[in-house]
Amino acid sequence: MFRTHTCGELRIADINSKVILAGWVQRIRDFGAMTFIDLRDRYGITQLVINEETADSVAKELDKLGREFVIQAIGAVRERSSKNNNIPTGEIEIALTEIKVLSPSEIPPFTIQDNTDGGDDLRMKYRYLDLRRNTVRENLILRAKMAHAVRSYLNAMDFIETETPVLIKSTPEGARDFVVPSRMNEGEFYALPQSPQLFKQLLMIGGFDRYYQIVKCFRDEDLRADRQPEFTQIDCEMSFVEQKDILETFEGLIKYVFKEVLNIEIEDFPWMPYSEAMENYGSDKPDTRFDMLINNISNETKGKGFGVFDSAEFIGAICAKGCATYTRKQLDKLTNWVKRPQIGAKGLVYVKCNEDGSFKSSVDKFYSQDNLKEWADKVGATAGDLILVLSGDKNTILNALGGLRLEIASQLGLRNKDTFKPLWVVDFPLLEWNEESNRFHAMHHPFTAPKPEDILLLDTDPGKVRANAYDLVINGVEIGGGSVRIFNSELQAKMFDKLGFTAEQAQAQFGFLMNAFKYGAPPHAGIAFGFDRLASMFAGLDSIRDVIAFPKNNSGRDVMIDSPSTIAAEQLDELSLKLNLKKKE
Amino acid sequence: MFRTHTCGELRIADINSKVILAGWVQRIRDFGAMTFIDLRDRYGITQLVINEETADSVAKELDKLGREFVIQAIGAVRERSSKNNNIPTGEIEIALTEIKVLSPSEIPPFTIQDNTDGGDDLRMKYRYLDLRRNTVRENLILRAKMAHAVRSYLNAMDFIETETPVLIKSTPEGARDFVVPSRMNEGEFYALPQSPQLFKQLLMIGGFDRYYQIVKCFRDEDLRADRQPEFTQIDCEMSFVEQKDILETFEGLIKYVFKEVLNIEIEDFPWMPYSEAMENYGSDKPDTRFDMLINNISNETKGKGFGVFDSAEFIGAICAKGCATYTRKQLDKLTNWVKRPQIGAKGLVYVKCNEDGSFKSSVDKFYSQDNLKEWADKVGATAGDLILVLSGDKNTILNALGGLRLEIASQLGLRNKDTFKPLWVVDFPLLEWNEESNRFHAMHHPFTAPKPEDILLLDTDPGKVRANAYDLVINGVEIGGGSVRIFNSELQAKMFDKLGFTAEQAQAQFGFLMNAFKYGAPPHAGIAFGFDRLASMFAGLDSIRDVIAFPKNNSGRDVMIDSPSTIAAEQLDELSLKLNLKKKE
Repeated sequence: MFRTHTCGELRIADINSKVILAGWVQRIRDFGAMTFIDLRDRYGITQLVINEETADSVAKELDKLGREFVIQAIGAVRERSSKNNNIPTGEIEIALTEIKVLSPSEIPPFTIQDNTDGGDDLRMKYRYLDLRRNTVRENLILRAKMAHAVRSYLNAMDFIETETPVLIKSTPEGARDFVVPSRMNEGEFYALPQSPQLFKQLLMIGGFDRYYQIVKCFRDEDLRADRQPEFTQIDCEMSFVEQKDILETFEGLIKYVFKEVLNIEIEDFPWMPYSEAMENYGSDKPDTRFDMLINNISNETKGKGFGVFDSAEFIGAICAKGCATYTRKQLDKLTNWVKRPQIGAKGLVYVKCNEDGSFKSSVDKFYSQDNLKEWADKVGATAGDLILVLSGDKNTILNALGGLRLEIASQLGLRNKDTFKPLWVVDFPLLEWNEESNRFHAMHHPFTAPKPEDILLLDTDPGKVRANAYDLVINGVEIGGGSVRIFNSELQAKMFDKLGFTAEQAQAQFGFLMNAFKYGAPPHAGIAFGFDRLASMFAGLDSIRDVIAFPKNNSGRDVMIDSPSTIAAEQLDELSLKLNLKKKE
Repeated sequence: MFRTHTCGELRIADINSKVILAGWVQRIRDFGAMTFIDLRDRYGITQLVINEETADSVAKELDKLGREFVIQAIGAVRERSSKNNNIPTGEIEIALTEIKVLSPSEIPPFTIQDNTDGGDDLRMKYRYLDLRRNTVRENLILRAKMAHAVRSYLNAMDFIETETPVLIKSTPEGARDFVVPSRMNEGEFYALPQSPQLFKQLLMIGGFDRYYQIVKCFRDEDLRADRQPEFTQIDCEMSFVEQKDILETFEGLIKYVFKEVLNIEIEDFPWMPYSEAMENYGSDKPDTRFDMLINNISNETKGKGFGVFDSAEFIGAICAKGCATYTRKQLDKLTNWVKRPQIGAKGLVYVKCNEDGSFKSSVDKFYSQDNLKEWADKVGATAGDLILVLSGDKNTILNALGGLRLEIASQLGLRNKDTFKPLWVVDFPLLEWNEESNRFHAMHHPFTAPKPEDILLLDTDPGKVRANAYDLVINGVEIGGGSVRIFNSELQAKMFDKLGFTAEQAQAQFGFLMNAFKYGAPPHAGIAFGFDRLASMFAGLDSIRDVIAFPKNNSGRDVMIDSPSTIAAEQLDELSLKLNLKKKE
């Protein structure tokens, strides 16, 4: 060992002990007669002192040192004259008798401090230096603690942690696969799993009863801000259960992790049908830290001669509490905000509920004070509130009001990161129509069971069929999702048919699953949680990147190791592949 | 829930309870007036009974049932008249009041029993049925328990479980990489990690101090019997430690897992230098469950006119205790065994130590009884023993005697699977000469530190340099290995030079690591354990396949899902690749 203690360990009780510490030089403060070195490691910071009593040989070593040098420091623990109550080692310091440089350092490209001067790109290129910052390391320790809590809970519940293969088979349904050419099987490819879905179902058919895994998954998608080509799931499956059992079990898991890791008690999760989430929140992942529900005010607004409303399918409103004081400028800004293509509204109507009981709206020409009073009553607005109204196609407007609701809440500071409001969104549609491919796609995935009472609708009105599918939403973020599975090969075949697979295609892609159903498949259901996202929420971060030790950038590149990269011609040849670059043309 | 209890749960105390069980029909025994169904799930077997008191409607359901049907069974617990003490539920049975078929089953292709009639290929194709067998499931539960024990120990020791990336960069050193074409970065590839080696070293440079991960790794090798293209490592790294610290820490881990999972106390692990392992056991992974050491009897055998020995570099012998009774036929068989190309000996000389104190050898023509007595004394042979002698090139003969030693020990039943003899093999050579590439290769990997006292030899006699590298060997199997790492960019550059890298190649492949060394790298060291192999040893199995839920065969194929497989032309096109098949030519 290069040390007797860590830099976070020594206390007043250790005074006079002779100790050896090792770590990084955080900073050196030279006061002439006295020099202090802050020595840092993962566990903390300890102050080292050199003064007139220190041997010259030691003092001479000082000249060599700089920030981020790795040194070994030998000396005696003594009480500080001026204590620092901000750190656990703040009552002591080490009077040095020897310093050894274990490893010198060039001047790092950014400061290793909580508030670093390094930009994102630089920090990613030198991620190993970024990882030395307390904030980054603490996020990763938090993640490790969460994984540990997840395992403790699930192990105690008799779940078997089982590894499923990474080299699997490409399937056309879902997102794009990463593929891996097989050298031993010429012209053939493995795929990396987007999830262990089929394998966990096979484990249920194999009688494992309860399975989980914290597992890497892969998706070759065009990356958005908060997506990574490789990500981690808490993947779970249970047999002989119904939806209620799954939700209870995993509500227990999430509560346990909150309690163990953050010491937060979470109340029982409400269940909200998908349709209610859409109508009230304009989203299938409602942020329920605040109300500000969407109201349908079509009845109150139509037939008064305002053509825009009269011709609209849907007129919806939200009530922004206490926002009657919004200025022209603020309202214009909101109007521009709702007109952005992502939101897609054509304009914004507002009603200010004045303190004197009167109303001021942008449509005063068409609506009397009594009319506006009706709107206010409908949306629950009182003096001082602001009513915001959008009109148009129903789905577009619900979505737009959902976005506006979040924007206003952010402005009002209603989205506190230390408040956690989980809920289950249930009763999702089984299928959704895809205009582009002109067929139904599975909203969840093709193995999701329809609600038994809706099965007959599969033939008559497939879009109306609800699924036994559920999402865990916390603070407007989808943290997990799953479903009760089909466990019957005929129903599964019917699903593939509805999804536009020919029997041959279904057999080629999923034959092994449909065959497995023929040998006694138990009823089963499962769920998967986005572990990166859950960890970033626990850490109070906006991005998942800082809970990933070595993340990739938006082009899927690891700029630290400079990957992906070209490979040798012999490697390609061994894989029976040729490049077919479009750039050249 | 489809059940109130599992099939392993009910006891005499539950008598008269009304219960619902769910599971698979293991077998049906029809005794006319009475029928018994053994209902099986992961937790056990419970006997269901139908007799003359049972309602006709239930009895009628019986006709539908067959092996592996999934049913729900409702009834009352009662005491059995004839108890079965072999199973925990053997005192009770369920008097059925209702049966529901949840899922029918075709006749399975093999029996779901501990001793199945299914061959390997069939069991792999229907792995989900194979997993229903108790033996297979128990192996995977054992594996999960081991992973849990590993994590408990390492978490308690302040190791941070950290996920490293799966999509990394191809490196030419070591085995062949699996590569993953990048769609977003045309013409470029990720590689799948053969180990997280570089990342764990970067985590140490990043101040993580103690890291571990139970992680999938990948190697595109021609598969031997006990290799899989994807395998699992327990991967660990520590900072500010020396070899001794690592060995103590991980000896503690292995002892802990043995104790927790198998309730076996393991004695302290001996340390054996590589050279001693080679000289005494003819292997760098000695099986120390038994002695039968190799003896150099060159001095005792040369110069007596036996040309074969006189011209040999090395004459070595082992003593097979109690084998003087071996017949001509047995000896011929051994002779053929050592002549196999894998062993590579030209012939086998034997000396039988007769009970009357005389010797009978295959070289009596050249050696007197006194000569043979000298051999016997040297190898510690006494009356009743058999001395087996091989001669030739030293390395070949040590290796051959090492193999022969194992073969004899197997014949003598000295390799008991319930005995565990771990040891550390230390002081490996740093480099080994490769005839094919006409250069040195790293015996462990290029990041391994030479022993400080041997560093000067790097320039004068590189083959003599010993490394601070170590292997954990148990019962003749290499279970883990690791090394103290180089943490200095100049020494690392010198290593790459010795390995035949140009400075440019080293920079292109490992520049990020050598750069990282410039910013204060702590002394660090690590180890990785083959988790599949450790699990198969704990389970008493010869192959790692049965501790892997979904293994691949020797061609790297998953015969259940039929992977790898061809992919769509559009997929190839999106990846800017073309097939370049050799088969076509």
